[in-house]
Amino acid sequence: MSVNEIILDMAKAARAASREIGKCSGQVKDKVLTDIAALLKEEASFLYEENAKDLEAAKESGLSSAMIDRLTIKEATIESMAQGLIEVAAMADPVGSMVKMWQRPNGLSVGKMRIPLGVVCMIYESRPNVTIDAAGLCLKAGNAVVLRGGSEAIHSNRALGQVIAKALAKNGLPETVVQLVPMTDREAVKELLAQEEYIDLVIPRGGEGLIRFVVTNSSIPVLKHYKGVCHVYVDDSADHDMAVNICQNGKVQRPGVCNAVETLLVNEAEAAAFLPKVYEVLSKDGVEFRGCPKTCAILKDAKPAQEEDWPAEFLDLILAVKIVKDMDEAMDHIARYGSLHTETIVTNNYSRAKRFCREVDASAVMVNASTRFNDGGQLGLGAEIGISTSKLHAFGPMGVEELTATKFVVEGQGQIRS
Amino acid sequence: MSVNEIILDMAKAARAASREIGKCSGQVKDKVLTDIAALLKEEASFLYEENAKDLEAAKESGLSSAMIDRLTIKEATIESMAQGLIEVAAMADPVGSMVKMWQRPNGLSVGKMRIPLGVVCMIYESRPNVTIDAAGLCLKAGNAVVLRGGSEAIHSNRALGQVIAKALAKNGLPETVVQLVPMTDREAVKELLAQEEYIDLVIPRGGEGLIRFVVTNSSIPVLKHYKGVCHVYVDDSADHDMAVNICQNGKVQRPGVCNAVETLLVNEAEAAAFLPKVYEVLSKDGVEFRGCPKTCAILKDAKPAQEEDWPAEFLDLILAVKIVKDMDEAMDHIARYGSLHTETIVTNNYSRAKRFCREVDASAVMVNASTRFNDGGQLGLGAEIGISTSKLHAFGPMGVEELTATKFVVEGQGQIRS
Repeated sequence: MSVNEIILDMAKAARAASREIGKCSGQVKDKVLTDIAALLKEEASFLYEENAKDLEAAKESGLSSAMIDRLTIKEATIESMAQGLIEVAAMADPVGSMVKMWQRPNGLSVGKMRIPLGVVCMIYESRPNVTIDAAGLCLKAGNAVVLRGGSEAIHSNRALGQVIAKALAKNGLPETVVQLVPMTDREAVKELLAQEEYIDLVIPRGGEGLIRFVVTNSSIPVLKHYKGVCHVYVDDSADHDMAVNICQNGKVQRPGVCNAVETLLVNEAEAAAFLPKVYEVLSKDGVEFRGCPKTCAILKDAKPAQEEDWPAEFLDLILAVKIVKDMDEAMDHIARYGSLHTETIVTNNYSRAKRFCREVDASAVMVNASTRFNDGGQLGLGAEIGISTSKLHAFGPMGVEELTATKFVVEGQGQIRS
Repeated sequence: MSVNEIILDMAKAARAASREIGKCSGQVKDKVLTDIAALLKEEASFLYEENAKDLEAAKESGLSSAMIDRLTIKEATIESMAQGLIEVAAMADPVGSMVKMWQRPNGLSVGKMRIPLGVVCMIYESRPNVTIDAAGLCLKAGNAVVLRGGSEAIHSNRALGQVIAKALAKNGLPETVVQLVPMTDREAVKELLAQEEYIDLVIPRGGEGLIRFVVTNSSIPVLKHYKGVCHVYVDDSADHDMAVNICQNGKVQRPGVCNAVETLLVNEAEAAAFLPKVYEVLSKDGVEFRGCPKTCAILKDAKPAQEEDWPAEFLDLILAVKIVKDMDEAMDHIARYGSLHTETIVTNNYSRAKRFCREVDASAVMVNASTRFNDGGQLGLGAEIGISTSKLHAFGPMGVEELTATKFVVEGQGQIRS
């Protein structure tokens, strides 16, 4: 069979399977999830064996040690995948619940019922745990899912796919509820992105190149997350110790993630007192400061920031610093250079805190809290499948609920329209 | 300037204007809406004059009388546009309201705040009242809007655009909050659909050809509504009089709309008794019956249905009729031929009613009520901007709320992530 025949068959099978999983009870779905968790442990040695094939190829092709680390399935990886599934199983079933109900003057009862989206396609790079996380969340939401992982993890992903298939079959569900695309080339991705009739949503996870490729080539709706250029604005009434802690947590705790801080904006009234404090702490952590001219006048060891530093997602121990006249200038800077991801103000001024929350355009706007909290688990949504920075359907961390839709349910006693 | 320069400038201006309207208070937005309503009446003679130019051109080009009727601005048209705006103004402002709030164990308060989408682009065919309806709903939701109406209504739309601009200016808002595309060719539409950076959502309204053109050419998310192939299923416990009323209302009251009934499915236990009743009433209204072989055996005057009748959106006084063994066969038929729009069951059986609601895949599923109720106004959403038959972001009638998104608002006391 040709690539497009294989993909078309998979997409059709996913659509058919989505009807089965869509009407499946919460009990059965949760049983599948806990069965996968148990099987991951039972089949650990098989998983290690298959993973070893990927690791060997990765070493041969000279993958970086960080990449190899992310690719490796260890006991702790299995433990954490299993734990994630058990947590998702423990959540309430979103499907079938009524989100809202109201009555019309003619006696019609109108409600909105939560329903699965249908078929979700995940396209992601080389972390095999995404295979389990994505399958678990999609299953819980009653969706069929087509998974297309990175080529580096192909053996690991196939092995994980077999474990999932076993758990589905054990519970009388078609194995086509969760399918793994066997091809790892971009042609296969293009074919997937053309299956508008059978796939309802595409979620790409990975670098900006992958995401732009998906957006450009897809006729299916895409939930995308380009990048995180997150700011902390230290207002003129800020508690300095709190602001230092928030900057340190945002920049240093995990610099390579999308909710890390990239730029610090400081009110000019605080700059002379605050900047040396934050510099003292963060420079010990190895952070390089790139400042505007006023910043460099205060911090003699800061490098001068270039124009390209303001929109940069460093994903590294680098912090751009700019002194601003007031909150309005900070908000203008964020509107110009921000990425709609996460923005924090540190302040004790009530009305400015409220204005910042209302006017700043980002998936999460925070007052006196670390940008690192923009995460499904941290915000209380449970596991997340990604963070959307576009506003359609979902904006911010996407949990199980964001993998559903709602339909109107109308109950009458014979009403007709006049 | 070239077409692409003009469109690019409009898109950029819309993005800039969206920040202004986005932070505008509900009071000011409502004042703009009521000012437009008042100005429509004050400027009536100007609107009639400009509309006359479109009507003349339409007559010359031989447009059908139905099309000319839809194009005409009469006193009643102005009255109804103004009334619509006043109703939208009377609704609560969705922007800034907190949809949900909860507390995290570490003391963080997390909420979801309703926000505007940003910039909406409406592409529609020749009814000038859509210009006012769409502008009103987008304004209320805090969005800037780019309107591209049909070429037949170009003079009318420009005149309406001037009225809107006057009301915006009167209230200190940029006129670019509502912009009308001056070009009516498809090249201009293609340029619009490429402005992913500046436009957040495209809503096409019109025939299937227009909608497919938009979906195929857009890199911006599209909320689409292809067609309505709506079914009534008469179950074996149905009240016959109620079922006849619901069929008549769905088929005859306004056959040319998307929530009209196209196919009647009848349980075989009821067919012999029910079909002659529904035939007697609907055939007097001029409805042509196209039946399956079993139907034709009962209704001697019905025409035999062809395969192409089952997925057809007749938009006319034609009804396809099929006798089914039970509700499962009815649901299978709907899954195969339905368009995810509106599906009704007429029944007195409690558990089947509940199963139908849960399992049928459609933007509105109804029990003992006319399909004609799938409409924003009828369901209590206020005015609607369209009916979405895809599940992402909105499924079913789209009112003001569906023109918004939500962002996370996190309030802390200095929390950092550990």
